[in-house]
Amino acid sequence: MDEVSVLAPATVSNVVCGFDCLGFALEEPHDELIMRKINERVIRIIHRDRFDLPTDPTNNVAGVALQAFMLAAEIDHGFEVEITKHIKPGSGIGSSAASACGAVVAANRLVGNKFAEPELVKFAMAGEMFASGSRHADNLAPCIFGGFTLVRSTDPLDIVELDFRPLFATVIHPQIEIKTSEARAILPQMVPFRDAVRNWSNLGAFVAGLAKGDYGLISRSFEDTIVEPVRKLLIPKFDDLKTASIANGALGGGISGSGPSVFMLSETKETATLVQQAMRAIYSQTGIDFNIHVARIHAKGVRFV
Amino acid sequence: MDEVSVLAPATVSNVVCGFDCLGFALEEPHDELIMRKINERVIRIIHRDRFDLPTDPTNNVAGVALQAFMLAAEIDHGFEVEITKHIKPGSGIGSSAASACGAVVAANRLVGNKFAEPELVKFAMAGEMFASGSRHADNLAPCIFGGFTLVRSTDPLDIVELDFRPLFATVIHPQIEIKTSEARAILPQMVPFRDAVRNWSNLGAFVAGLAKGDYGLISRSFEDTIVEPVRKLLIPKFDDLKTASIANGALGGGISGSGPSVFMLSETKETATLVQQAMRAIYSQTGIDFNIHVARIHAKGVRFV
Repeated sequence: MDEVSVLAPATVSNVVCGFDCLGFALEEPHDELIMRKINERVIRIIHRDRFDLPTDPTNNVAGVALQAFMLAAEIDHGFEVEITKHIKPGSGIGSSAASACGAVVAANRLVGNKFAEPELVKFAMAGEMFASGSRHADNLAPCIFGGFTLVRSTDPLDIVELDFRPLFATVIHPQIEIKTSEARAILPQMVPFRDAVRNWSNLGAFVAGLAKGDYGLISRSFEDTIVEPVRKLLIPKFDDLKTASIANGALGGGISGSGPSVFMLSETKETATLVQQAMRAIYSQTGIDFNIHVARIHAKGVRFV
Repeated sequence: MDEVSVLAPATVSNVVCGFDCLGFALEEPHDELIMRKINERVIRIIHRDRFDLPTDPTNNVAGVALQAFMLAAEIDHGFEVEITKHIKPGSGIGSSAASACGAVVAANRLVGNKFAEPELVKFAMAGEMFASGSRHADNLAPCIFGGFTLVRSTDPLDIVELDFRPLFATVIHPQIEIKTSEARAILPQMVPFRDAVRNWSNLGAFVAGLAKGDYGLISRSFEDTIVEPVRKLLIPKFDDLKTASIANGALGGGISGSGPSVFMLSETKETATLVQQAMRAIYSQTGIDFNIHVARIHAKGVRFV
C-alpha cells in the first residue's frame, strides 16, 4: 500500500469540569489527508485549502508530528501529504490536533501499523507542542480514539477511553481571535480548596453519568467554577448563550478548548437543533460573524476512507 | 412491626483522590442496632458496649439523627434504640455515620418506609453535623447505599452510586488520637492549579477504572498530592505502610476519613491478607497498639437481620 486517505475529526477539549483532561470527538467537521510513500526520506506537504498554512515540515503541525513518527519508525522512505482542512485553525475545536493525528495515523498504516494508538498520540503530541507550546493531549486523545477520552496523565501518557451514550453537540464559532497565550495567562495559579473539591466531585460524577447514560447527572455535574468564570470574559455573550441553550433543553456546556468556540451538549439531535436556533438568535444581534453546527459525538477517531 | 434489628457497616471516606466526596462500605466491622416503637414521643438510648457514649438523645449521634427523622415523620410515638457498637469511635472508619444511618434506616422501617434513601442520608447528616461540626455525607452515603458512592454535592444533596468490581480493603487502626479539628486545620486553603487538575484527572480515571474493573487504572489513579502530604504527618509510619503494601500487591490506598486508620485496596482477598501481614510487621515495631483487618467492599449498606 502506497497511498491512504483519512478523515481526522474536530474535537472538543477542556470539557467543563474536565479542564485539561476531558475531550470528545465530533462527527464533523473533519480534515481530509491523503498520505503517500515517497522514495526520498523527506516530508512534503501540500495544502488543498484556503488557510495558507506553512508547507515547511519543521514549521507545520502535521510535519512536526510526522518527523517524530519517522524518527521512531526507522524507515528508508518519506511521505507526501495532501491536506484539505475543513476545521478552521484557531477555532478552538482541535484544528491542529486533527492535522497531527490524521498524519500519524495515515503514516502508521503505510508502514504496516508499527505503532499502537498511545504511541501515535505521543508523535502527534510533538506537533501539538509545536502549535501550542504546551505538552497536552486532550484534543489528540479523542481525535485518535474517538468518543470521550480522559487523559489521566501526559507523562507518562495515560489515556482512558470512557463509556458513553448518544450525545449531540451544538458548536458555535464566533469569528474572533483568542490568543492561546492570553487564555493561558488568565488561568489562576492557585485555586480555593473548596472549588477544587467541588470540581473533582463534579468530574467524578460526570464520568459516572456518561457511563450510566444518566443525562440528569451529566447535566447537574456540568459545572466549572474555576476556569469558565475567567475565560468566558473573552467570549461575547457567553452567559446568554449558555442560559438560552439550557432553557432550550441542553444538558450544559462551556468553552471548547481555549475558545472562542462554545459547545453545548444535548441528549437528542432535535434538542441540539433547538439549541442551535437559540444560539443563532443571540449571536445574530452581535454583529460578529459566526459559524454554528450540530454534530453527534462520534465513537470513532481518525478513520480511513 | 414494633421492633427491627439492623447492622450498620463501617465506611471509608476521603478515598485518596476523592477527598470529601468518595467513600465505600466495608463488610465488617458493623454496629448492631435494635429499634423499638414506644408509646411516649421520646427517644431512649441504651448502650450495650464498652464505649460509654452519651444516652441523652440531644448529645448522641444516633439521637440527633432520630430527632431529625421524627420531626419530618410526623408520628405520635417514640423510639427506644439499643446500640452495640463494634466500630470504635474516633477510628476514622465512620463510627458516627454507622450510628446515625443505622438509627434512621431502622426507624424508617418501623414507620412503613416513609422515606427514600436520600432523605435518610439527610436525617443522618444532622447526626454527623453534631458529631463532626461539618456538613458532610461521604461516610453516610456508602453506609446507607453500600458499595462505592460519590457525593457530588451536599446542598442540594446529590449522591451517585458507582459501579464497581470486587475489591478488598486492608484497614489498620493505630490506637492514637487525631483530633478532627486538627486534621481540618492543616488542610490547605488554596491549592496549586496544577495539583487540582492532576487530582480531578485522577478521580475521573478512578471512577472509570472502577466501572470497567480495570485494576491497573484504579492503581495508577490512586494518587493524592494535595491532602495526603499534610495529613500523613499525623500518622506514624504512613509512608512505610504504603510502600510495603504496594510492594505486596496492593493497588494503593491512603488515610481513611481524617485518620488515624489507613486503608489499602487489593484485587483479591489473598493479596489483602499479604498486605495485612506487611502492615502488621511494620506496626509491630512502633510500640503503638493497633487493630488490623481485611474486609470486602460490601455492595450493601445498612441491612436488616
